[in-house]
Amino acid sequence: MAGFADKLAAAVTRNQSLVCVGLDPDPPQVPASVRARGDWLAHFTAGIVEATADLVCAYKPNLAFYEALGADGWAGLRASLAAIPSDVPVLLDAKRGDIGSTAQAYATALFDELGADAVTVSPYLGFDALEPFLAYRERGVFVLCKTSNPGAAEFQDLLCEVHGERRPLYEHVARAAVRWSKQASVGLVVGATHPEVFRAVRAVAPDLPFLVPGVGAQGGDLAMAVNEGLDRRGAGLLVASSRAIIYASGGEDWQAAAREAARGLRDCINGLREAKAHGAASLS
Amino acid sequence: MAGFADKLAAAVTRNQSLVCVGLDPDPPQVPASVRARGDWLAHFTAGIVEATADLVCAYKPNLAFYEALGADGWAGLRASLAAIPSDVPVLLDAKRGDIGSTAQAYATALFDELGADAVTVSPYLGFDALEPFLAYRERGVFVLCKTSNPGAAEFQDLLCEVHGERRPLYEHVARAAVRWSKQASVGLVVGATHPEVFRAVRAVAPDLPFLVPGVGAQGGDLAMAVNEGLDRRGAGLLVASSRAIIYASGGEDWQAAAREAARGLRDCINGLREAKAHGAASLS
Repeated sequence: MAGFADKLAAAVTRNQSLVCVGLDPDPPQVPASVRARGDWLAHFTAGIVEATADLVCAYKPNLAFYEALGADGWAGLRASLAAIPSDVPVLLDAKRGDIGSTAQAYATALFDELGADAVTVSPYLGFDALEPFLAYRERGVFVLCKTSNPGAAEFQDLLCEVHGERRPLYEHVARAAVRWSKQASVGLVVGATHPEVFRAVRAVAPDLPFLVPGVGAQGGDLAMAVNEGLDRRGAGLLVASSRAIIYASGGEDWQAAAREAARGLRDCINGLREAKAHGAASLS
Repeated sequence: MAGFADKLAAAVTRNQSLVCVGLDPDPPQVPASVRARGDWLAHFTAGIVEATADLVCAYKPNLAFYEALGADGWAGLRASLAAIPSDVPVLLDAKRGDIGSTAQAYATALFDELGADAVTVSPYLGFDALEPFLAYRERGVFVLCKTSNPGAAEFQDLLCEVHGERRPLYEHVARAAVRWSKQASVGLVVGATHPEVFRAVRAVAPDLPFLVPGVGAQGGDLAMAVNEGLDRRGAGLLVASSRAIIYASGGEDWQAAAREAARGLRDCINGLREAKAHGAASLS
């Protein structure tokens, strides 16, 4: 099995895409014609994957939406995962974070049981809570840094003092993630809301991939995220979009509409990448 | 359905216990005679509950250990939950934390699908990430504050400045939890490792229940936790113990051994409670 970083880089190049499609199966939003089927969950997620697999760099199933469906959700999650081509990485959005033995059990659940290429985790418990995930050196571990929700500032923006320097908590997390990245494939979750955050985190972590939620239905600023977030190779971003793609249409054309929405986001991002590359070239 | 706070108070009084038994089903630790059965997971957890239900104030199934078992784990979790008497509260240890719509899906999964009386959550994303949980006003929401693992200090102890006052991050979380407790039944997770932490958090949050991991297999200081952590009514603690109780014996006597371990912890805690009550009385 190829490592996450290689698999991601290959998908980015092959599909010319930084789009990460979130799979958040929420019954009221699923097209009625699909919802009426007994196998709606497997049918819907497989249909979204079929319509978009050549336009994305990764899929991000969100465990919460599967868990909310109970036993059916767990069966449906396996069907969703089975529908994803093996050369497109799967980032399981789980945001787990717990002490050693429990973290080990979560790592087993996500990496071994479900076969994730990468996962999201929460940093609140510190390094040893993430170590069982980092021990899977070929998998990816995306650490929550600065999130895109209204209340993110409450703790993440608190100014904390370390060695006499005062920085927001999220910057301390980014610095820690850079240290952790020496032993594993580590990324950061950075919401597409504040340009100064992107600039600060990219300065601290020039080489870590950013998973960027907050684009699309959450109304983040895509141009800002691309301009401030691209790494020096013009990549290093996974722009996550769920609802704006998978629920692009509630009618019979849901697959075609998802494809168009994914293609539109991909092309928009690529236009911004090109503009930035040319801007940088003309300045040099 | 009785609210979590009332159900907990009734169990504390009825069983004269502050012991919260953690259900962490880990195959290598399960007695071999049990492990050999096809229905080992349901048999083991039901057997632990049967042996201890009159000695505890709550059970705390740890979702990670069930998730690590895949589809069998989810079926086993339902069997575990079904085995717990309806008058003993179930605290699902999940440590979830995510943005609004996802947090809502996790709340649905834990409270509606699985029927938890209370859950553990992570504070890193701020208030709006916890609001969907707090909206279940009759359920309990335990917020990670200071954990018992070696790396807890990495972020939780960072000195953060708010309104000109510098306090460790965990104290800011405790203060926020007190605010949130005005609209729901909120508790804190406080590891049994540092007396000064217990004192500081109890001073900030005199009336919130503390879920205390780190006793037993993790080697925390029980006497310290009871002396510093009891609230003014001589309760307000859920002392969590998992491995030291449920894996007390790997032999045929596993149920009797679990019962003795639970009874021993309960009686030890009650001795400390009495000593503190008498100490306080003799000082007044």
